[in-house]
Amino acid sequence: MADAVHLSLDEAHALALGALTASGFSDDQARAVADTVIAAERDGGTSHGLFRIPFYVKALQNPDVNARAVPELTDRAPGVLHVDAKFGFAPLALQMSADPLADKARGNGIAALAINNAYHIAALWPEVERLAEKGLVAFAFTAAMAYVAPAGGTKPLYGTNPMAFAWPRRGRPPLVFDQASSVTARGEILVHLRDGKPIPEGWAIGPDGTPTTDPETALAGAQLAFGGHKGAAIALMVELLAGALVGDVFSYEATARDTGTGAPCGGEFLMAIDPARCAPGGDAGAVMEHAEQLFSKILEQDGARLPSDRRFAARARTPRDGIHIPRSLHESITEMAADAGARRTGASPPAHTRPGTVSTLQGRGI
Amino acid sequence: MADAVHLSLDEAHALALGALTASGFSDDQARAVADTVIAAERDGGTSHGLFRIPFYVKALQNPDVNARAVPELTDRAPGVLHVDAKFGFAPLALQMSADPLADKARGNGIAALAINNAYHIAALWPEVERLAEKGLVAFAFTAAMAYVAPAGGTKPLYGTNPMAFAWPRRGRPPLVFDQASSVTARGEILVHLRDGKPIPEGWAIGPDGTPTTDPETALAGAQLAFGGHKGAAIALMVELLAGALVGDVFSYEATARDTGTGAPCGGEFLMAIDPARCAPGGDAGAVMEHAEQLFSKILEQDGARLPSDRRFAARARTPRDGIHIPRSLHESITEMAADAGARRTGASPPAHTRPGTVSTLQGRGI
Repeated sequence: MADAVHLSLDEAHALALGALTASGFSDDQARAVADTVIAAERDGGTSHGLFRIPFYVKALQNPDVNARAVPELTDRAPGVLHVDAKFGFAPLALQMSADPLADKARGNGIAALAINNAYHIAALWPEVERLAEKGLVAFAFTAAMAYVAPAGGTKPLYGTNPMAFAWPRRGRPPLVFDQASSVTARGEILVHLRDGKPIPEGWAIGPDGTPTTDPETALAGAQLAFGGHKGAAIALMVELLAGALVGDVFSYEATARDTGTGAPCGGEFLMAIDPARCAPGGDAGAVMEHAEQLFSKILEQDGARLPSDRRFAARARTPRDGIHIPRSLHESITEMAADAGARRTGASPPAHTRPGTVSTLQGRGI
Repeated sequence: MADAVHLSLDEAHALALGALTASGFSDDQARAVADTVIAAERDGGTSHGLFRIPFYVKALQNPDVNARAVPELTDRAPGVLHVDAKFGFAPLALQMSADPLADKARGNGIAALAINNAYHIAALWPEVERLAEKGLVAFAFTAAMAYVAPAGGTKPLYGTNPMAFAWPRRGRPPLVFDQASSVTARGEILVHLRDGKPIPEGWAIGPDGTPTTDPETALAGAQLAFGGHKGAAIALMVELLAGALVGDVFSYEATARDTGTGAPCGGEFLMAIDPARCAPGGDAGAVMEHAEQLFSKILEQDGARLPSDRRFAARARTPRDGIHIPRSLHESITEMAADAGARRTGASPPAHTRPGTVSTLQGRGI
């Protein structure tokens, strides 16, 4: 792989951290973002991996973004925690609130976390997996950027609105899914555009409301929810939870206030449940064992799989084998640290803000 | 409509109540079932309306069913309520627990309800709508009877596993959706079988794992989740919440212990959130107003609709106009009361337990 650079996970983490801190992120914000991005690389999720670092750095061009923000946690109710991310990035707010949320879930049986004012361009599964690793059942919802048409409609209104769920397992990683309410991620359409390929039918409609397989027309039109009106209902639920309920913006409002840096700002909603407080006799062990019977039944079927199996297969591999990233991406991230240093001494604008693939993807949403 | 009988909603309620109490239901169990069934009729949901009364009565042939059960409520945690339905029907357990669950949600901000040992053959929306009418955001999940294949698999394992969600609205009925994790309800396949029509592609696969449009082959095979692996992930989540988490059965276990009466017994899981305890400054009014802006945005689009619009349109009509039910169904329910009376005096077996359409549908699941 001549066009690829090989990195250990530690090297990849250091690369991300260096670019972020050099660009002005506080140590805490930088570490939380690097942790999240490298967790994605570790799990084979390259689209949420180092690929996202330039997006985090470019977001700083938006004067509203605060890469040194210190999230503020407050109690809203015995079962509700609130985090104001203070216009920093979501990963630090999520890391800081995981233990307090888990404590609330253990005390009350169930607890919720409302997050406001967070720039969120990461995957959603790290926050639910983190809670499941503490033995809790967890849900997360976030909404951003109007791309998806409502049921029966033809214009973009909802975000691709992921919903994530995690179930704890003893002695192995949790069962986790993190799925967009749209048929496909926006990035998939962009990749088809870049490669000059038509998109499959059913992904999107054009501005005139008719089905399209042309990625350009799809981007100008609206993405479709998965499973028709049922997926659209889930997208709507996500808007209500991560927008109205937590007192933050809907996707169409996030789009309206977007400054073109491609980093949406908004809310997120999480719930955590302690199986020991729901199960008969408080026997969380019996609950876990019972669930394993279901997982076995699923895997008995030829071809059947659990939602997170592919990610965990990658996770078994990458700590030993490391990862490969495109040389261009490696150079771009390496330059960021250098550029940031040069900027402090008054040099020319950094290369990664010049027009190019990354900026194009950013302006269109990923 | 010569083959239909016209009833006011009150008459329909009395008809249901009469058949149930004559068949041996306690007054409380009968009233709760009749309330639920007539709420469906009121909303145009005939498949969950009086059509279900013969199913409730036939369920009594299962000696495990207790139509006089008194559900038992206990506190599991500050935020978790438990209801043992004692092998009675779900509607009474749900009615009895709504206020205590709402109190917990208001006190803690979020609360959960775990239900065990409930025979559930009703729709799921009444329980979330009831909570939303109290100003709460609500979720409900239940699993029963193995009909749906897991992601990548070909054999039935999951139930059609509905998930319901409700959002409170001021001065109008809540926004509610109640959707199966399968592409379609099992009853739809049965209706196609009855009418000798092929089912659409994408609904099901045959026992050999290949797609089928033949309803008989579909019933012998497996239904498919909506939206492919994403719907299957939701079906799996529902199994975990309504099965393992509450300490009750998975769908395949409900199938294994089914005695052919077609009334599955199992668990249900609900969550309720108080917007006043999540929103900034405790301002639930602002949350509600914000949500209305989203609903307006949706309805601005030609053809777009809110999930529960059709039900509420029916609800505006039926209290004034009443409902029509098939004459055969009316006769069948009317006979039940008479049969039950006759049975007490030692007469022949009741007509509704003789082989026929209803029994056929029951044995196959609805």
